[in-house]
Amino acid sequence: MTACIDGTADSTEHEVIHLERAALRRWLDGDPGGFLEISAQDVVYFDPFIPRRIDGLPALTAYYEGLRGTIRAEHFELSSPVVQEAGEMAALSFNFASWNGDGPRMLWNCTEVYRRDAVGWRIVQTHWSLTQP
Amino acid sequence: MTACIDGTADSTEHEVIHLERAALRRWLDGDPGGFLEISAQDVVYFDPFIPRRIDGLPALTAYYEGLRGTIRAEHFELSSPVVQEAGEMAALSFNFASWNGDGPRMLWNCTEVYRRDAVGWRIVQTHWSLTQP
Repeated sequence: MTACIDGTADSTEHEVIHLERAALRRWLDGDPGGFLEISAQDVVYFDPFIPRRIDGLPALTAYYEGLRGTIRAEHFELSSPVVQEAGEMAALSFNFASWNGDGPRMLWNCTEVYRRDAVGWRIVQTHWSLTQP
Repeated sequence: MTACIDGTADSTEHEVIHLERAALRRWLDGDPGGFLEISAQDVVYFDPFIPRRIDGLPALTAYYEGLRGTIRAEHFELSSPVVQEAGEMAALSFNFASWNGDGPRMLWNCTEVYRRDAVGWRIVQTHWSLTQP
């Protein structure tokens, strides 16, 4: 188990953790492009604010673009990442916190399933939920 | 997309959907054994009632056994299951509802990542969250 704060790089980490952290850094600066660039066409998506799963990159793009510029957090912590890899897939799960200044921390559970496509690791499934909402 | 209610079998469905439905049927009859029997040693688990991810089958067994006999639902609906399979893994995601009589429906998002181990498909990652809590 490794706890990594912000951009702290750990060269022993699995590539999908690096991808995830880079996309999160952009996400928390209001830019959903980092996630969109590494999501597969057939990506499916859950978060606590939508009534049903979002299916496919076009629908996810529409949702994410609606959030562009609205999300800001100065700090984040991606803690205890676990990668379970077999064949062409890798399931990454972690606990997550983000916060501004001395403000309250938003606490999340996250699962990301990556698939090794011809173009590299791509997200095929995202599930964000609030930790003990 | 297929909506399946209760024990409705659909022979075209992926095997992991059959496994999931069979385990859910036992789960909603108070028996966590169905899930424990198809979970891998390295399974990790999120739900909305725990402060951190549960790691490993012994810890998950302790948690599930504490719930034995406490969960009952007469009906359930596993809707719009999607299976994304590559190599030795298959990520199953679905929306879920359970209810008793004319009572309110509990609505869930669920992701289950299965891995094809020597003994068959085994769950390596479970993520349950409430839909728009």
